[in-house]
Amino acid sequence: MFTFGKPRAKLHYSLVYLVMKLGARHIFYFKQHLHGIYVRLVGSVEPRIVDSVGEGVTHLKPGDHVLPVFTGECGNCRHCKSKESNMCDLLRINTDRGVMLSDGKTRFSINGKPIYHFVGTSTFSEYTVAHVGSVAKINPAAPLDKVCILSCGISTGLGATLNVAKPTKGSTVAIFGLGAVGLAAAEGARIAGASRIIGVDLNPNRFEEAKKFGCTEFVNPKDHNKPVQEVLAEMTDGGVDRSVECTGNINTMISAFECVHDGWGVAVLVGVPNRDDAFKTRPVNFLNERTLKGTFFGNYKPRSDLPSVVEKYMNKELELEKFITHQVAFRDINKAFDYMLAGEGIRCIIRMDA
Amino acid sequence: MFTFGKPRAKLHYSLVYLVMKLGARHIFYFKQHLHGIYVRLVGSVEPRIVDSVGEGVTHLKPGDHVLPVFTGECGNCRHCKSKESNMCDLLRINTDRGVMLSDGKTRFSINGKPIYHFVGTSTFSEYTVAHVGSVAKINPAAPLDKVCILSCGISTGLGATLNVAKPTKGSTVAIFGLGAVGLAAAEGARIAGASRIIGVDLNPNRFEEAKKFGCTEFVNPKDHNKPVQEVLAEMTDGGVDRSVECTGNINTMISAFECVHDGWGVAVLVGVPNRDDAFKTRPVNFLNERTLKGTFFGNYKPRSDLPSVVEKYMNKELELEKFITHQVAFRDINKAFDYMLAGEGIRCIIRMDA
Ligand SMILES: NC(=O)c1ccc[n+]([C@@H]2O[C@H](COP(=O)([O-])OP(=O)(O)OC[C@H]3O[C@@H](n4cnc5c(N)ncnc54)[C@H](O)[C@@H]3O)[C@@H](O)[C@H]2O)c1
Ligand SMILES: NC(=O)c1ccc[n+]([C@@H]2O[C@H](COP(=O)([O-])OP(=O)(O)OC[C@H]3O[C@@H](n4cnc5c(N)ncnc54)[C@H](O)[C@@H]3O)[C@@H](O)[C@H]2O)c1
Repeated sequence: MFTFGKPRAKLHYSLVYLVMKLGARHIFYFKQHLHGIYVRLVGSVEPRIVDSVGEGVTHLKPGDHVLPVFTGECGNCRHCKSKESNMCDLLRINTDRGVMLSDGKTRFSINGKPIYHFVGTSTFSEYTVAHVGSVAKINPAAPLDKVCILSCGISTGLGATLNVAKPTKGSTVAIFGLGAVGLAAAEGARIAGASRIIGVDLNPNRFEEAKKFGCTEFVNPKDHNKPVQEVLAEMTDGGVDRSVECTGNINTMISAFECVHDGWGVAVLVGVPNRDDAFKTRPVNFLNERTLKGTFFGNYKPRSDLPSVVEKYMNKELELEKFITHQVAFRDINKAFDYMLAGEGIRCIIRMDA
Repeated sequence: MFTFGKPRAKLHYSLVYLVMKLGARHIFYFKQHLHGIYVRLVGSVEPRIVDSVGEGVTHLKPGDHVLPVFTGECGNCRHCKSKESNMCDLLRINTDRGVMLSDGKTRFSINGKPIYHFVGTSTFSEYTVAHVGSVAKINPAAPLDKVCILSCGISTGLGATLNVAKPTKGSTVAIFGLGAVGLAAAEGARIAGASRIIGVDLNPNRFEEAKKFGCTEFVNPKDHNKPVQEVLAEMTDGGVDRSVECTGNINTMISAFECVHDGWGVAVLVGVPNRDDAFKTRPVNFLNERTLKGTFFGNYKPRSDLPSVVEKYMNKELELEKFITHQVAFRDINKAFDYMLAGEGIRCIIRMDA
C-alpha cells in the first residue's frame, strides 16, 4: 500500500503539498537517471494544480495552477535578493537530498518503506509534495500540457539567449548543439531579432528541424578540416556577435568562446560538462574584449520570472507546440525514456490522465 | 641635422602634424623598450598643443589641447561604430608599424636617415606627427602636466572597473596587482562606491600607498598556504562581487576569476599575458553564473570618451596628483626608465620645457 506522510510546515520552510500515488518501479527507474538524463528530455503534465497547502503558506491556495521547477527560489537568501542570480542558496538544484527541508523526512512511502523525493519536485507521480519555493504560480488559462515544458530545458535555452547572451536586433548568433536546449536558444535569438542564426551540430538530421526554430545556416564540424571557430570566423568577417553552447562537450565550449568577435562578442555556456573537464584558452582572447559567461536555468528566477515566460506563450511571442514531438500515458513512461535515449524527437509529455 | 618630412594627408587618412625635433639617442632607447615597458610607466607632458593640421582635418585646429593615445579611434570602422568596442580596426595599437598610414612613410629623419614612429604617438619628442584618430581633443583649461597620465595606464585601470566590472554601491571588489593600473582600478572602485576594496599584491610595500586609492584590506598571497582565491572566498562569505586583474601573471588571472562569487561575480582581466600562456579553469565555474571579461584601455574610446575622464578630474571626482610620484626634465629621460625598472613610484612625468 502506498501512503503519504502528513505534511508539516514552519513559516520559514513553508510547503505546498499534494497527495501522491506512485508505483515504486518508476522511482527506481529514474534513480538510475539521476545525473543529467532525467532533466534532459522527459516533461510531465502533472502535478499541476495545488491540492492543499501546508501551514504558513499564504500566497498559494488549493486550485492554483503551478509549474514545479527543479531549482527553487526561497525569496530570502542573497541570491534571491540579488537581481543578477537565480542560484537560491536554500533550494538550488540538489539531486541527492531526497527529503523535505523542514524536517529532513520524506513524504512518500510504500508498505512502510520510505520513498525519496527527487530534485525538489518528484513529478513522475500523480500527486507530489514540494517546498513552496519550488513551484511557480502561473496563469490558470495556460494549457498545462504545453507550458509544462517551461520547467526545465526550454526556459534554460530561451533564457540563455534572452537573459544572458542578449543579442541585439540584426546580429549574428551561433548555437552549438541543436537538442531541445539549443533549439530553445535559437528560438530566443529569433525572438530577439537576430538576422543570422547559425546552428552547429555533429548530427545533420538536426538541421531540417532547426529551421523551424529560426536557424538560417548550418555548420557540421565534421565537414571541415579546421577548427569550427575558424569556419565561423570566416563566415562572419571575424566572428559571431553571440554564441550559446548547448552540448556539454568541453571542446565545443572552447570553440563557442573562441568563435565570438573581438571587441563585443559574448559566449554563453549552458551544457553541463564532466567534473574533470578543463576549459582552456589563450588569455589574449579575453583581453581582446570577449566575454564568457555561464548560465543555470537561463538565469530565470523560477517563481519571479516563469509566469512572464508563460505569458510570452499566451500572447504568441513564443511557440511551444513545435518542441513537443511525443506524448505518452503515465503507464508507458518507459517509452519516454526510450525516445530520449534514442535521441528521437525533442520533448515527450507524460500524461497522467491518459 | 634632424629634419621632419612634409606631412601629406588625404581626407580619409587625415593627419594632425606637429613639427618634431628629437635626439636620436632617445629614439633608440625606447626602441629597446618597444614591447610593453614603454607604455607602462613613462608619461610625457609634450606634445600637447596642436601646431598645425594636415589637409582634410576639420575638427582640430592649431592651438587645440590634445592627449595623444597609443590606440586610436578612426570613427568609421565596425569597432568604432559599435557601442561596445574600442578596438578600432584602423588605429588599434600597433607597435611595429612605425610609419604614417596614409603613405607608409615616416615623418622623422636624422641626417637623411629615417627615424620611425612609435605606437602612433611618438611622444618622447618635443614635436610629433600623429594620425588625427590618435589624439583626443580635451578641455584647454585642464593642466597638461596632470591629465597627460590619462593617455594610458590610469584610464585603463579606471575604465576596467567603471566601464567593465561595474561594481555597484556597497559591493566588494578585489584588485590584483597594485601598480599604477591596479591603483587606478582601485580608484574606480572607490568612485563607484564599493565598500570593501581588497588589494592583492606580492609586494607588501604597495599596501601603504594603496590606502590612498581606496583599498580597505590587503592580502599577500605569500602569507597563506592555500590558493589566494580560497583566502578571498573565506573573507567574503563565498567570493567577491567583482575582481580586476592588473599583473599580467597567468596564475593571478585564474585566481582573479575563481575568487568571484557564484551567481553574480564578474572578473576583468587587464594585465598583458605572455603569448604562450594558457588560461585554465573548470567549466562549472562559468556555469555557476560567473562572468569573465578582458578589457583593452579600460574600454574607453579615446576620442569619444577621454574628454569626459578629463572632466572627472576637473570637477574633482577623480584625483590624479597622487599617481604622479616623479618628474624629470627631457634631458634626464633615462632616469625615468631607471625609476620604472626599479619599481620606484607610480608615474613619472617627462617635462619637455624643463
Ligand atoms: N545550464 C542549465 O541550467 C541546463 C539545463 C538543462 C540542460 N542543460 C544541459 O544542456 C545540454 C543540452 O541539453 P539537451 O537536452 O538539448 O541535449 P540533447 O542531447 O538533446 O542535444 C545535444 C545536441 O548536441 C549535439 N552535439 C553533441 N556533441 C556535439 C559537438 N561536439 N559539436 C556539436 N554538436 C554536438 C548533439 O548531436 C545533440 O543534437 C546538456 O549538456 C544538458 O545537461 C543545462
Ligand atoms: N589591457 C590594457 O589595455 C593595459 C594597458 C596598460 C597596461 N596593461 C597591463 O597591466 C598590467 C599592470 O601594469 P602596471 O603598469 O600597473 O604594472 P606594475 O609592474 O607597475 O604593477 C604590477 C603589480 O603587480 C604585482 N604583482 C606581480 N605579480 C603578482 C602576483 N602573482 N600576484 C599579486 N601581485 C603581483 C607587482 O608586485 C606590482 O605591484 C601589466 O601587465 C600591463 O602590461 C594593460
